[in-house]
Amino acid sequence: MPQVGGHRIVIVGGGFGGLACASKLGGAPVDVSLIDKRNHNLFQPLLYQIATAILSPADISEPLRRTLGKKRNIDVVMAEVVGIDAQRKAVLTRDGAPVEYDTLVIATGSVDNYLGHDEWKQHAPGLKTNRDARQVRETLLLAFERAELTLDPEERRKLLTFVIVGGGPTGVELAGAIAELGVFLLQRDFRNIAPKELNIILLEAGPGILSGFDEKLAQYALRRLEARGVDVRVNTPVEAIAAEEVTAGGEKIPTACVIWGAGVRATPVAEWLGVEPQRGGRVAVAPDLGAIGFEDIYVLGDAASVQGEGGPFPALAQVAKQQGQYLGRKLRLSAEGRHDDAPFRFRNRGITAVIGRNAAVFQSGRFKLTGRLAWWLWAIVHVYLLVNFEKRLLVSVQWIWTFLTGQRNARLIDDRS
Amino acid sequence: MPQVGGHRIVIVGGGFGGLACASKLGGAPVDVSLIDKRNHNLFQPLLYQIATAILSPADISEPLRRTLGKKRNIDVVMAEVVGIDAQRKAVLTRDGAPVEYDTLVIATGSVDNYLGHDEWKQHAPGLKTNRDARQVRETLLLAFERAELTLDPEERRKLLTFVIVGGGPTGVELAGAIAELGVFLLQRDFRNIAPKELNIILLEAGPGILSGFDEKLAQYALRRLEARGVDVRVNTPVEAIAAEEVTAGGEKIPTACVIWGAGVRATPVAEWLGVEPQRGGRVAVAPDLGAIGFEDIYVLGDAASVQGEGGPFPALAQVAKQQGQYLGRKLRLSAEGRHDDAPFRFRNRGITAVIGRNAAVFQSGRFKLTGRLAWWLWAIVHVYLLVNFEKRLLVSVQWIWTFLTGQRNARLIDDRS
Repeated sequence: MPQVGGHRIVIVGGGFGGLACASKLGGAPVDVSLIDKRNHNLFQPLLYQIATAILSPADISEPLRRTLGKKRNIDVVMAEVVGIDAQRKAVLTRDGAPVEYDTLVIATGSVDNYLGHDEWKQHAPGLKTNRDARQVRETLLLAFERAELTLDPEERRKLLTFVIVGGGPTGVELAGAIAELGVFLLQRDFRNIAPKELNIILLEAGPGILSGFDEKLAQYALRRLEARGVDVRVNTPVEAIAAEEVTAGGEKIPTACVIWGAGVRATPVAEWLGVEPQRGGRVAVAPDLGAIGFEDIYVLGDAASVQGEGGPFPALAQVAKQQGQYLGRKLRLSAEGRHDDAPFRFRNRGITAVIGRNAAVFQSGRFKLTGRLAWWLWAIVHVYLLVNFEKRLLVSVQWIWTFLTGQRNARLIDDRS
Repeated sequence: MPQVGGHRIVIVGGGFGGLACASKLGGAPVDVSLIDKRNHNLFQPLLYQIATAILSPADISEPLRRTLGKKRNIDVVMAEVVGIDAQRKAVLTRDGAPVEYDTLVIATGSVDNYLGHDEWKQHAPGLKTNRDARQVRETLLLAFERAELTLDPEERRKLLTFVIVGGGPTGVELAGAIAELGVFLLQRDFRNIAPKELNIILLEAGPGILSGFDEKLAQYALRRLEARGVDVRVNTPVEAIAAEEVTAGGEKIPTACVIWGAGVRATPVAEWLGVEPQRGGRVAVAPDLGAIGFEDIYVLGDAASVQGEGGPFPALAQVAKQQGQYLGRKLRLSAEGRHDDAPFRFRNRGITAVIGRNAAVFQSGRFKLTGRLAWWLWAIVHVYLLVNFEKRLLVSVQWIWTFLTGQRNARLIDDRS
């Protein structure tokens, strides 16, 4: 472990927030340890493109050591955190020794929220990790292969029915991408299935999809999804999910593929700290992100609920990233003996969702954009947000190829074990 | 199923041979079904680059439907073949209905040969599928992460010991690539391990590595491996493989990672056909690749042993590909009422193995090449052999990036389940 400055900052979580915080602390007179159960930072906004065979996991995953390797005061620890001993000032990990801290930053993000029905998870994976996305990709592609071979019309209908739960950006993007993939495959590559047999159902419990967006943009997205053949059902909460069957709006829907995109809840940080969780399981923090009731613990991103100063903020990558940058700078100044008591301020960069080729929505304050232009803006911004030139080039090549030919580079069903 | 010409050709296996055969039959007056348990053709010569985090599975895997989708007389069936009923003229699959044929082409290739010790497989995966390669990649990368954290010197030595069994091209390429990966990681990204702690052992039962190559080339490869720190042990057959331990040359070697590259044997085609297997489990075929004793069954590639006319041929991709092309053309002519009785002739394109950056060997007849030039030739030929422009571009970008920076794009440890 590095022993540069003596003061030891431990960051838990290498997502957008944790990594931004660590990066700001490179070269500062402190010892930093970044703990994550993964070895990589994952660009989650593009996970649905892994699930729909456009990109490969490596294209949106960057090893933490690669990002931080040259910052010699920062140490990466691959371990799963299972608790925090605030008395002893130590982070507890599953297999290894406790990691002691002087200052602790918690940036562990969120997990899929199954609304009290964790038993649904086995039948309806979410989309939070590469493993999830690969599993969805395999289920999708296998469903087409099996539908091509079966002679039983009911089995075939079930195999060609894809249910997506949740009409937020994740659900909308998935539904649009699956529709595009399916139509392409059935027109070009399969022999026994007609594109009209494809049955993609998007379930939303509330009165409309994309509830965080302006009503006009939501209406646009709805029209574009329906034009692609997606069956969008609003005011239709899921009642049950079993093997190969979803019940919603009183109807039993046989399906070989259910994907969960109906919201998230915070990782169990409140439990680790022994504090009362706020809405969504988040931990109350002051405007400087300090956990309320603690002197030396900060929480940021999806796990934090800022009290006052515009908070709590939505569970967005840009919030986590900005909070990580803010806190990294603050801790750096503090280590250098300078102090900055300014609270965190969120600069909203706008929100966006993509429905498919040439169709997206973008909204920033009163500025709204739909269609081809929004789609190009979405694509350029997302390429730019990737971590380095190599990934930008790889993703661009694959997007351009898909745009020109409709083909998908990663239509890969793993060898069966 | 397509019903174009009436005569039905079934090809089992979508590797180099089966796919080449199918491609030649596109548009011919026959119905073709290509059966494979995977949905993709895999460019096996680059699998070691998946295992060592340079490329992603999708970069070297091409969906069979993508290659054959536009050839409307060809149907792809994703199913696992478990036997052949030559009386009924049907291929038996694990889950689906039997697939009937008029003419059958078997191109199922080979599997790892554990020399009668199939129980070693669980501890020493081979390198035949994307799943294998991803498993090796994960084991390698996790070993470094765990070595970085452990305080126990014996555990650490075990974690940093990598054993590769077999000194053929696969073993040599793997050993070289692991050495390069390890040195790069330990110099740049890890804090607690010195590059000299890396312990890569290449075990070869025979008197020298690369036994298929000229002695001078083999000597060159040996020197280059040793210069990279690989401990090459010839005349050292493996005696036992258990969990985290290999016994070879009377020595017990503790190791967290053993990879099997000690040769292949044919898939059980001889058993399916009820014929006496030849050397390596292959099936005896005539110089026109017709299985001896059958009128309507052909076998090609690693599973075939050509009697006479220069055969049997080595288990190489170029042999399978050329045999597939030969047979596809022959069957096409036959379907068109023309016949060509010329036997298969192998045109040797040369053999090559790469040890690492700027180091490879190439041999074609009496022409021999080593070093930087052989490496560039190897790289250009392998990019050219990839299936389409998109994959060539993606692989080139990643190779150039790795060449310039030493970085690897796919240093990805999956989320633990």
